[in-house]
Amino acid sequence: MTVQSRSSSPVVLGQNQYGKAENRVVRITRNGATHHIRDLNVSIALSGDMEDVHRSGSNAHVLPTDTTKNTVFAFAKEHGVASPEQFAIHLARHFVTSQDAIHRARVRVEEYAWERIGAGGDEAGGHSFARRGQEVRLAQVTYDGDRWEVVSGLKDLTVMNSTDSEFWGYVKDDYTTLKEAYDRILATSVHGRWRFNWTGDDQETPDWDASYAAARTHLLQAFAETYSLSLQQTLFQMGTRIIDHRAEIDEVRFSLPNSHHFLVDLEPFGLKNDNEVYFAADRPYGLIEGTVLREGCEARIPSDLTNL
Amino acid sequence: MTVQSRSSSPVVLGQNQYGKAENRVVRITRNGATHHIRDLNVSIALSGDMEDVHRSGSNAHVLPTDTTKNTVFAFAKEHGVASPEQFAIHLARHFVTSQDAIHRARVRVEEYAWERIGAGGDEAGGHSFARRGQEVRLAQVTYDGDRWEVVSGLKDLTVMNSTDSEFWGYVKDDYTTLKEAYDRILATSVHGRWRFNWTGDDQETPDWDASYAAARTHLLQAFAETYSLSLQQTLFQMGTRIIDHRAEIDEVRFSLPNSHHFLVDLEPFGLKNDNEVYFAADRPYGLIEGTVLREGCEARIPSDLTNL
Amino acid sequence: MTVQSRSSSPVVLGQNQYGKAENRVVRITRNGATHHIRDLNVSIALSGDMEDVHRSGSNAHVLPTDTTKNTVFAFAKEHGVASPEQFAIHLARHFVTSQDAIHRARVRVEEYAWERIGAGGDEAGGHSFARRGQEVRLAQVTYDGDRWEVVSGLKDLTVMNSTDSEFWGYVKDDYTTLKEAYDRILATSVHGRWRFNWTGDDQETPDWDASYAAARTHLLQAFAETYSLSLQQTLFQMGTRIIDHRAEIDEVRFSLPNSHHFLVDLEPFGLKNDNEVYFAADRPYGLIEGTVLREGCEARIPSDLTNL
Amino acid sequence: MTVQSRSSSPVVLGQNQYGKAENRVVRITRNGATHHIRDLNVSIALSGDMEDVHRSGSNAHVLPTDTTKNTVFAFAKEHGVASPEQFAIHLARHFVTSQDAIHRARVRVEEYAWERIGAGGDEAGGHSFARRGQEVRLAQVTYDGDRWEVVSGLKDLTVMNSTDSEFWGYVKDDYTTLKEAYDRILATSVHGRWRFNWTGDDQETPDWDASYAAARTHLLQAFAETYSLSLQQTLFQMGTRIIDHRAEIDEVRFSLPNSHHFLVDLEPFGLKNDNEVYFAADRPYGLIEGTVLREGCEARIPSDLTNL
Repeated sequence: MTVQSRSSSPVVLGQNQYGKAENRVVRITRNGATHHIRDLNVSIALSGDMEDVHRSGSNAHVLPTDTTKNTVFAFAKEHGVASPEQFAIHLARHFVTSQDAIHRARVRVEEYAWERIGAGGDEAGGHSFARRGQEVRLAQVTYDGDRWEVVSGLKDLTVMNSTDSEFWGYVKDDYTTLKEAYDRILATSVHGRWRFNWTGDDQETPDWDASYAAARTHLLQAFAETYSLSLQQTLFQMGTRIIDHRAEIDEVRFSLPNSHHFLVDLEPFGLKNDNEVYFAADRPYGLIEGTVLREGCEARIPSDLTNL
Repeated sequence: MTVQSRSSSPVVLGQNQYGKAENRVVRITRNGATHHIRDLNVSIALSGDMEDVHRSGSNAHVLPTDTTKNTVFAFAKEHGVASPEQFAIHLARHFVTSQDAIHRARVRVEEYAWERIGAGGDEAGGHSFARRGQEVRLAQVTYDGDRWEVVSGLKDLTVMNSTDSEFWGYVKDDYTTLKEAYDRILATSVHGRWRFNWTGDDQETPDWDASYAAARTHLLQAFAETYSLSLQQTLFQMGTRIIDHRAEIDEVRFSLPNSHHFLVDLEPFGLKNDNEVYFAADRPYGLIEGTVLREGCEARIPSDLTNL
Repeated sequence: MTVQSRSSSPVVLGQNQYGKAENRVVRITRNGATHHIRDLNVSIALSGDMEDVHRSGSNAHVLPTDTTKNTVFAFAKEHGVASPEQFAIHLARHFVTSQDAIHRARVRVEEYAWERIGAGGDEAGGHSFARRGQEVRLAQVTYDGDRWEVVSGLKDLTVMNSTDSEFWGYVKDDYTTLKEAYDRILATSVHGRWRFNWTGDDQETPDWDASYAAARTHLLQAFAETYSLSLQQTLFQMGTRIIDHRAEIDEVRFSLPNSHHFLVDLEPFGLKNDNEVYFAADRPYGLIEGTVLREGCEARIPSDLTNL
Repeated sequence: MTVQSRSSSPVVLGQNQYGKAENRVVRITRNGATHHIRDLNVSIALSGDMEDVHRSGSNAHVLPTDTTKNTVFAFAKEHGVASPEQFAIHLARHFVTSQDAIHRARVRVEEYAWERIGAGGDEAGGHSFARRGQEVRLAQVTYDGDRWEVVSGLKDLTVMNSTDSEFWGYVKDDYTTLKEAYDRILATSVHGRWRFNWTGDDQETPDWDASYAAARTHLLQAFAETYSLSLQQTLFQMGTRIIDHRAEIDEVRFSLPNSHHFLVDLEPFGLKNDNEVYFAADRPYGLIEGTVLREGCEARIPSDLTNL
């Protein structure tokens, strides 16, 4: 019944990684009656000397995924969660430096933000929270024992400009029926990631929380302030604004669905639709993706932030 | 190949309803350079003299669901969207009064809130928005040509108290292993609906937006301020607070998952977990549901707000 | 900080229920080398003498939801899972008969089907399975210490007739633009529930698995064989077929989205679309809901199987 | 109000792509009374000379995403859908060869399978279908005007071995608490992609449908027949089996969640759990990812099939 490898032609093991995904850790810090929350979803991916476990099933080099889970929860106590990035750095360093067989660790973190219920300072509100429910903050730390790579970002930040967007002057071929638009809604759900130029402990470490807040503000302002002739132009402005203002960031990639809001034809009902009533469509949607790089820097963020 | 009814024993048609569900209408109001958004998901359900369409397929009494969709978009222009409730009232009245065969209309609305990007008053921010992404506001209007019923509410409002919750003194049977807790996290995702005592146009119409904002505030404050010995107690406080403060509301029902945050056992790692590190579990979860009624009023909100 | 009830006007506690929802239990039965799976999602809802826990937080009458979870897993061992319905009956009886304060138990079960990988009889395939991934089977058992109610059903069974469907002869009002269709796709995702007339142990118990398989077959055949002039007609045929053929079932309710497949206009590209190329739309969709009853029987299945 | 690029430091445009995502096209082929369905979700991503549209908003090189959508539907008529791969090849070739500014096209297809209701051959069943609802078939075709790359695969194929799986002999560190297992459930939801060595029209084109069916069977058999000491071992067997048996495939990558089924401790209830009752957990889960390559071949499938 058991089937060991019966490969006739030689096969090679390529890139591989393993670990526990989606560890949902909530860390409460009690400052007297005032509490603070960090609410994370942490995924671990380890690589290294893993030929044996794939070929024979020997786990002699395998730190169990269950152990990686335990480590996430233990480190939340031992190190606290100063920021998603800092927490991921602690974890990645631990796995690579404590296990000979682990040569590379990648730690991904999603963070969900909470806001206080009621006046922030009052006694009752000091430990009561509502989940903000807007964007999910992202952080990814990769460490190979030598070099660090930190990529932060966000997803699910849905934004809309109700005017100041046009789309015209495009290529027309035999399959083109779209009419040019001189005043349209531009809406998207921002999925962005940005890479820091920090690569190791001999450099000054960025203030991760401050950097995140600033990058978020810059991309929102660029979205709001760009009079847009195409979503690509808006994307480029969003990336440029971050690169220009944040010296610690060298590369930004966005995946921006063009969330179509179609002007509804009300003429059959004797009504004029003066850019007032829109149908918000689900599928299909335009999908605009691109990278903005600081000149001279290498692109390292993968092209596909999503799988479609 | 065609099979007409071949029923041997007599069958009866029971309650039935039909219409177009999930019409995603976005209404922009332009006040000079400053725009306002109402972003709705509208579902229509009509009932009436529908025996024929079920038995013979005759559509002589059937206003197409496509027409109900058109009406939603047309009414967004004709009447605007003063509030989800008011918009639903316009629609429900229309279907019942304009079609002889339609005896009852129920209109359900979900509303998604948006907030301005940047300083609210600045020029650039006047038409740029980010979706708030917190709770979804709910409104349901039912009209039978005579009597109105309005039920408002919300869902997906995720809240947490990081302390001031206990659970002890419960029944122990042969299957009980739970340890009593004297300081636990209490977290839930609020799904609530509340029924207005307004039943017709001869009464003063509530200020739907103001009422919603107040009910939301009351339930949040009750959640935050209740020192909780059980989620049922918190639920009852949330409902009571609304009934007490809002004379226009007679009935409140909540469906509250008890979103378990389990204290992680860190002792195997030589660490003490002083209510600091929690595992946020997905399933299973407690589910606490209940109605709070103004004395003397009839319960009309169905028991099941969800399907599990 | 603690706020006990400060209600000024009297409030009444209405219908309430509580329990552990979505217990994901997998039961393996080993018959030598051949294994059998039942894969369930079980939700418990208990009602009874619960005034105190709502008003004062006293849990003296409260069997913890954690205990209801434990009971689900223990009963999977003690009683096995002969069928979702039978398993739910064991659980409902237990809660009502073992706890004085519990007067009513409702147990809901979702079942996910698995099929064997490879030839069913071979040794290797005797314990290897793939999840079928088609419909989810549903069972709901309610017991009040006296009377049983069993409602079974299914959801997410997506079906399509690529012809033999028309839609015409409907009402036209000022908002009607739809063109009549004489050959269209009819597609839906079936959500159905049917109620048994079995109400207690003195009656012969239905063969739940056989009844489910037969009801599923009947509704599929009715869908396939009905030349449809409206989705309501198809719905009525589906219900009638079950009532006619299954004496143990008195009531059937369906919630059927009309999953629109729009014929794409290819004329701008010089192509004729002879009912070949369709756009499968997401939202909005028609939603057709209705009950078919055996004559003389009471309707007891709630109108809303979904929340839109 | 308009803000053109105000970049102070030079920024560079990196990899970028755009197109219409998730075009839901259903193609019916009528063979007399017997119909055939292909049900696809098609996503287009185009790259090329797109500097201007990002920097100035000029759309002079931009074929609108709306046009790419139209082309998908028109090609479903013009070319039919012989297979997802063949359909994608038609589309990719068209965009690259018909537009000077488009240098690369990537077409992704998801396919949903349908099965006939009733006996396949009968008249009534000839146009009635139920969606199979098991795995989603995947195809991705990339063309740069010179070289073709075809990657096929599947996702959401949930499988389980109820025995013949062990896990022991792993590394223990200070955070390890897991007990060794000598008979456990092994369950996963297979997400796999495999790359063909076909790169152009001068080679014999694979039979895409036959190749898909064979690869699916091989991976299922390898899953079922491998006595597993680790999920990595099973993954490697699954990939090796495909490489060994399918000469047209050079590279296979899997992303396999270890869907934990935890044996429930029933001892507190005086019951022995002899591998009969399991709790199917949601999160966290192990995530095992790896590539199996034919010797001498280059790895080209990206590491991350998912985003966690």
